[in-house]
Amino acid sequence: MNTYWEDELAIEIIKTCDELERLVSGLKSDGKTIGVVPTMGALHEGHLSLARAAVSQTDIAIATIFLNPTQFAPNEDLTTYPEPIEADIAKLEDVGVPYLFAPSNDEMYPPGFSTSVVPPKISKRLEGEFRPTHFAGVATVVLKLLNLTQADIGFFGQKDFQQVMVIKRMIADLNVPTEIRVCPIVRESDGLALSSRNVYLSKKEREIALSLSRTLDHVEKQIRSGLRDGFEAITEMRQMLIDAGVDSIDYAILAHPNTLETNDPIELPVVALIAAFVGKTRLIDNRVIN
Amino acid sequence: MNTYWEDELAIEIIKTCDELERLVSGLKSDGKTIGVVPTMGALHEGHLSLARAAVSQTDIAIATIFLNPTQFAPNEDLTTYPEPIEADIAKLEDVGVPYLFAPSNDEMYPPGFSTSVVPPKISKRLEGEFRPTHFAGVATVVLKLLNLTQADIGFFGQKDFQQVMVIKRMIADLNVPTEIRVCPIVRESDGLALSSRNVYLSKKEREIALSLSRTLDHVEKQIRSGLRDGFEAITEMRQMLIDAGVDSIDYAILAHPNTLETNDPIELPVVALIAAFVGKTRLIDNRVIN
Repeated sequence: MNTYWEDELAIEIIKTCDELERLVSGLKSDGKTIGVVPTMGALHEGHLSLARAAVSQTDIAIATIFLNPTQFAPNEDLTTYPEPIEADIAKLEDVGVPYLFAPSNDEMYPPGFSTSVVPPKISKRLEGEFRPTHFAGVATVVLKLLNLTQADIGFFGQKDFQQVMVIKRMIADLNVPTEIRVCPIVRESDGLALSSRNVYLSKKEREIALSLSRTLDHVEKQIRSGLRDGFEAITEMRQMLIDAGVDSIDYAILAHPNTLETNDPIELPVVALIAAFVGKTRLIDNRVIN
Repeated sequence: MNTYWEDELAIEIIKTCDELERLVSGLKSDGKTIGVVPTMGALHEGHLSLARAAVSQTDIAIATIFLNPTQFAPNEDLTTYPEPIEADIAKLEDVGVPYLFAPSNDEMYPPGFSTSVVPPKISKRLEGEFRPTHFAGVATVVLKLLNLTQADIGFFGQKDFQQVMVIKRMIADLNVPTEIRVCPIVRESDGLALSSRNVYLSKKEREIALSLSRTLDHVEKQIRSGLRDGFEAITEMRQMLIDAGVDSIDYAILAHPNTLETNDPIELPVVALIAAFVGKTRLIDNRVIN
């Protein structure tokens, strides 16, 4: 049952898997292509760029908002993660998304639920070292959402660079009939990559957080100027972050963009990836240099 | 490339995932329903009953033959498993199956393949105790085949009672848009459940193998006559098998058909399940008593 204000909306909010399956089955019979934009809510312009891509590149865009507990470790920020659902709905309506799937935990993980995905090997590196259960949670929920929406195209952001690689490999390995499209990182005018977690930052922390994109700017410039010594480049990246005042660095590396293996001496294309804490907030950013 | 004799067939043999995806995508655009019959080859009347069901209950039946290595343990019979592909093709053609997907190992598990399914909890019991990696292999390959064929309906045999439960739960947990239909066990006139492994049996072993279905007949009769003592029933089942000369019993139990939990005192419905070795051949059989 929708509340009175939900009935007034131009976007239809779907809360159960059964309802979604009925909708999708009808759309498929009518030969419509479906684009899905999986999110955890707390939507910003990065998410909305994915939603706009889905609206323009497929017949029917379906956004999903599900704050998936299985991709958070017990010490992480699941309980404080921002959940402004009314604002999210208004934003999606605004960019012309016709359907939002916003299920409960029980709907996604009903009693007796016990199947999961062992994510591909590439999930073990980087994020996998610091968040060892994260990608199993991501892979399982993304597979569920792709199956539920029977999406022809799934839209994901390049900010989660490794996540995109994990999802692409899972889809290839399991022969999921969905194409993945990756949209560029959206940034504030000063360079800060948009993140739902940016709201955690104090004014001073936000200033420090800028060091991630500035470090990526700097290393890109150096590599474009001919720097090929990976160790030197990484050492400088770490130093810039520390000098700016980040509290700890999970990783600041240069890697091959298809394998995430160490790229030293640097060969193009290369991806620079950073994960660092500013206060209690964990931020990530990356840059592909072709 | 097909060999000359393959071009003469009324059944089209598909060897690559790409070809299958193109076929399925065309069929789906035309609004056809697809039924899949996943097999490991060495087809017998049990498999053919599934193929006939797929032919009659869906627009397009696709049989698959793939001797999946990941569901065999190193000590099991992968290398001796019968592979009479020409005979299998003729049988499928005969029952009117229009498409056979028969991929190579490399096609299903290309270099870098590294995603898999953790099968649902119900996979831990019975077969899971004796073949601990079996259902992970089954779940992963079945999910791949359902995705590749985008099947509306998947046809499976009740002989693999627990396998059907594992697949049904996986499909529910991962929201796979495929319905599972289960076809009854097909038996020889003397009661032996059909199995590709029956060809391993010597004449004497085949006589001993009959004890599985006879034990199921006996316990069914006893339960229908009012026996409710599960321990007594199971003890008698084991004794019948041993007296007949089976070499070892993995399990001979009575369970709740929806949970596989112990059913003692016996409550209907109940399923009797047996796995036993006759010589080196592992045989399974079961009976649901409503």
